[in-house]
Amino acid sequence: MAITGVLRPGHAQLRVLNLEEDVKFYRDVLGLVEMGRDSYGRVYFKGWDERDHHSLVIRQADRAGIDLFAFKVDGVATLDKLEGDLNAYGVETKRIPAGEMLNTGERVSFVIPNGHTIELYAEKKDVGNGLGYMNPEPWNAAAEKGIAPTRMDHALLGGVDLDGARDIFVNVLGFYLVEEVVAEDGKTQIAVWLSCSTKTHDIAFVRAPEDGKLHHVSYWLETWEKVLRAADIMSMNRVPVDIGPTRHGITRGATIYAFDRSGNRFETFSGGYIAYPDMHPLTWPIDHLPEGLDFAQRKLHETFLTVFS
Amino acid sequence: MAITGVLRPGHAQLRVLNLEEDVKFYRDVLGLVEMGRDSYGRVYFKGWDERDHHSLVIRQADRAGIDLFAFKVDGVATLDKLEGDLNAYGVETKRIPAGEMLNTGERVSFVIPNGHTIELYAEKKDVGNGLGYMNPEPWNAAAEKGIAPTRMDHALLGGVDLDGARDIFVNVLGFYLVEEVVAEDGKTQIAVWLSCSTKTHDIAFVRAPEDGKLHHVSYWLETWEKVLRAADIMSMNRVPVDIGPTRHGITRGATIYAFDRSGNRFETFSGGYIAYPDMHPLTWPIDHLPEGLDFAQRKLHETFLTVFS
Amino acid sequence: MAITGVLRPGHAQLRVLNLEEDVKFYRDVLGLVEMGRDSYGRVYFKGWDERDHHSLVIRQADRAGIDLFAFKVDGVATLDKLEGDLNAYGVETKRIPAGEMLNTGERVSFVIPNGHTIELYAEKKDVGNGLGYMNPEPWNAAAEKGIAPTRMDHALLGGVDLDGARDIFVNVLGFYLVEEVVAEDGKTQIAVWLSCSTKTHDIAFVRAPEDGKLHHVSYWLETWEKVLRAADIMSMNRVPVDIGPTRHGITRGATIYAFDRSGNRFETFSGGYIAYPDMHPLTWPIDHLPEGLDFAQRKLHETFLTVFS
Amino acid sequence: MAITGVLRPGHAQLRVLNLEEDVKFYRDVLGLVEMGRDSYGRVYFKGWDERDHHSLVIRQADRAGIDLFAFKVDGVATLDKLEGDLNAYGVETKRIPAGEMLNTGERVSFVIPNGHTIELYAEKKDVGNGLGYMNPEPWNAAAEKGIAPTRMDHALLGGVDLDGARDIFVNVLGFYLVEEVVAEDGKTQIAVWLSCSTKTHDIAFVRAPEDGKLHHVSYWLETWEKVLRAADIMSMNRVPVDIGPTRHGITRGATIYAFDRSGNRFETFSGGYIAYPDMHPLTWPIDHLPEGLDFAQRKLHETFLTVFS
Repeated sequence: MAITGVLRPGHAQLRVLNLEEDVKFYRDVLGLVEMGRDSYGRVYFKGWDERDHHSLVIRQADRAGIDLFAFKVDGVATLDKLEGDLNAYGVETKRIPAGEMLNTGERVSFVIPNGHTIELYAEKKDVGNGLGYMNPEPWNAAAEKGIAPTRMDHALLGGVDLDGARDIFVNVLGFYLVEEVVAEDGKTQIAVWLSCSTKTHDIAFVRAPEDGKLHHVSYWLETWEKVLRAADIMSMNRVPVDIGPTRHGITRGATIYAFDRSGNRFETFSGGYIAYPDMHPLTWPIDHLPEGLDFAQRKLHETFLTVFS
Repeated sequence: MAITGVLRPGHAQLRVLNLEEDVKFYRDVLGLVEMGRDSYGRVYFKGWDERDHHSLVIRQADRAGIDLFAFKVDGVATLDKLEGDLNAYGVETKRIPAGEMLNTGERVSFVIPNGHTIELYAEKKDVGNGLGYMNPEPWNAAAEKGIAPTRMDHALLGGVDLDGARDIFVNVLGFYLVEEVVAEDGKTQIAVWLSCSTKTHDIAFVRAPEDGKLHHVSYWLETWEKVLRAADIMSMNRVPVDIGPTRHGITRGATIYAFDRSGNRFETFSGGYIAYPDMHPLTWPIDHLPEGLDFAQRKLHETFLTVFS
Repeated sequence: MAITGVLRPGHAQLRVLNLEEDVKFYRDVLGLVEMGRDSYGRVYFKGWDERDHHSLVIRQADRAGIDLFAFKVDGVATLDKLEGDLNAYGVETKRIPAGEMLNTGERVSFVIPNGHTIELYAEKKDVGNGLGYMNPEPWNAAAEKGIAPTRMDHALLGGVDLDGARDIFVNVLGFYLVEEVVAEDGKTQIAVWLSCSTKTHDIAFVRAPEDGKLHHVSYWLETWEKVLRAADIMSMNRVPVDIGPTRHGITRGATIYAFDRSGNRFETFSGGYIAYPDMHPLTWPIDHLPEGLDFAQRKLHETFLTVFS
Repeated sequence: MAITGVLRPGHAQLRVLNLEEDVKFYRDVLGLVEMGRDSYGRVYFKGWDERDHHSLVIRQADRAGIDLFAFKVDGVATLDKLEGDLNAYGVETKRIPAGEMLNTGERVSFVIPNGHTIELYAEKKDVGNGLGYMNPEPWNAAAEKGIAPTRMDHALLGGVDLDGARDIFVNVLGFYLVEEVVAEDGKTQIAVWLSCSTKTHDIAFVRAPEDGKLHHVSYWLETWEKVLRAADIMSMNRVPVDIGPTRHGITRGATIYAFDRSGNRFETFSGGYIAYPDMHPLTWPIDHLPEGLDFAQRKLHETFLTVFS
């Protein structure tokens, strides 16, 4: 009861064009903690305040983008049950053995109708956030190394069949709709923000002309002042900023969109509100997307709907 | 799945010594929205960003304190199921008919072993936050009227049998332990912070010499800057401040403790971290309570353990 | 000694296309305090924390722009002395009688080589900031009515002969150079920020193809959080934002550029550093103007060099 | 003109009981930049954003306290003139040769009637703030090492003859009165805040039973969020906090008072307003000192009037 089933986004796996360049980027500029490499050459990272072993994995590839986005569930029994529910819903799954990812238990992997690979898993090693479990201080030096988001927060994924993707998350995985952008017809969803918690989004989908596309992976900052600090650090490190700093009308979050060294968009954001499944969803007709995206400028930055990796 | 069962703190009902004085306090100083009065003379309030009809009820009485603290559950079926679970656990319940509280459905009421009356309910009228459900602006004038917390967040309740109270919330209602203060023996809990969400606390209990005592009801502010603004407004209105502004080591929240016109302590706070049920609880041995309470000053303000209403 | 001579920017007089529209804008959106109207139909405003009678005057006209920018000096003797110094420097002056502007003493008016009318005056009525001079509270309700800058801070004025304008301020009025943008030749100044205080700028000049042009009048906000609040209020009131929120590399200020109802650009900003006349000026070669202007995006917004009123 | 004569507080020299302990404190906890040691064993520090060689000097001694507080003036001619003015006012001065302090020109030293040694000097080596004078970034890593105030801001000095001390600063050195605490008689000043700039204080005096006593040296932080960060770092390093975080009613600054390893009080603060010499001073009758000191709690912390070093 209360918080059950799917707990939270657990890890994203991204493709980068020059591994060492992006290791430097994610470690020294974004300020994630580098957690190790595996035999496939993948590099693992976590936010400084995360306690599980990793939340971001990057690997060398010849095109950028996202391989998979995974969620932690609250136990092995839940993992089994959700796999059964997915299969019953007509979603094919496969098991990836424990250990295929460092310090991670068995994963259930499946492809959703917008071409994205989603994973569920129940176990990942608790490595702590460095503050201990007795009398922890509120933060430590890791909280100021680079941009230093506390955690990986959510992803916005693009693909053609938004509805099919959404239905699996809502009907099978227990997510609820928090906000949506709808087309001129007042019904067709252009983008949806879904939550499995009291956050405004744990996953979001946008309708895109091509399947399996990454819009952005998002990282949490504690304050609007840290958003400015993030902007400063991006500039100092010649990180190309796409939009921001500004406030999204959608979710109220204060945000910057920018790109890693390979062209994968990421977001550093803060703010928003506490969401609950009994709340009426918020709707943004497409002609209000400009203020939904950039509330300060009420401007539809064209890249929002066109640039993916 | 995901967020199920008990959703959130729904309302607190407080006793005040001079109703009109505290109506003014809660409306004009704390900046809650006054929502109406019922035939019993009770006055109803909500935080500006809350959408359900009310989250605080006050009534005239000859001694201050708390009558009851209630949680919203995710549906009538859940209400029935939880009542059954409570009864099976040996907790006696009674039904309070719909409408006894304004715009509120049937409530299940029960007394927990530390003398507090707890309620569950599934239905309360969605009155909105004034921003609408289409293209909502991020805030409006109500967000700056008085201290203006966005919502009622949690309560800390005192009584002798902390263990019995905690067990009902953990074993029956699906809450999990986030942080605890333990006695010299390393085991006996002096205080516990429990969550049914990704917030660091939805309810907290402290061991107190007398049952049914209120330590504080807490209200959420969006930023540390708004905590300073709250301090200013308290001072301008001669609200007696107990502790703060400062940071709690426990939960990391930035806080002020102060008292309403009747001596009921309240908290305005911000910050903290995102909690999950799979996280190892954080433990504060009693000799570390000073920094757990007031991280800046590392000082055990005596009132913390002695002043209740 | 210490602070003498020219004290601070005292008032700007702007032309607006529809007086009542811009009265509403400056009073309700920007949140200046409306202080009165004179027999010429001019409307007077001040920032809530300013104590002198006004710092902005607007008047109906058929084209937008700035009529004059004025500085308060520390006494009548200084006014006389500075007039003499100006005349000795070859600058023609005229006296405008006390009372021509409401609650304002005699003014010395002169035109500088980039076509701007500058005024000096020694006396303006102290009307207070509403907090009193005994035990003042730190702010009051006026501090939250609209964007509510504490004060008018500076202006950036455009014209052909930047050097001539700068020389009068530096050689006669005692200003010093804080920062500058220089052309490819490493010498020709494209823009200069000048101070008569410990602020990073009390007046700034930019080389522009036409004389007497306004780039912006700037208003001070206390924090970066209030810059976000300003952005929200601009959006809520459909104020066209030009640039921001972002940080200027130049002066380090956190800023938004936007336009009043007549197309006069204004700035709401916060931050920066404490400047002193013994500090080495900071130089931005023109190819670094992008980050000087918008440090977050390192982007030369074209409007910066082309849009004036 | 504009800013002339005395520019700013230039350095404080403090006595500490265990030099290496306090070197660690000022460097690693307060986060000043260690600039060198001289042949007398004195250790020199500066704030990260200060450009002159040092602003704090500490030396080993058998009792804590302040040796001297110095101001930079705008040139050698001013130094000569002010020495003449002081002598004409009846203040005896002596010259301390250039180089007696590292990288510092000749100093004029004199004792004021409350027993404090004050110095004036015109020259100190510009060592820069590490950001350069071309296209400077807004901050660098030094801005986050320890509490990391940008600069030393002012001092509050205690002694019997407040009036005599004040008169020299006001009548000879060109300071003006910004705020004052007055006794029950409505006239006798208990404390005064004096400025030679647009800051709310460059020096302050409090009436104390013993001459030559230090109340605190104050360091500037850029935001209220950095005040919380300072509180966190103090706690992490077991720095004894005296008062705060809170807001002073006097000057509106957001503040923490705490003690170095030797019992010298220091302040880290932010905020306040821009002051000018033509502003009416603000007066706090002694019975309003509680809110003047701690606006949040309206509490006269006894240490404020009794603890000096």
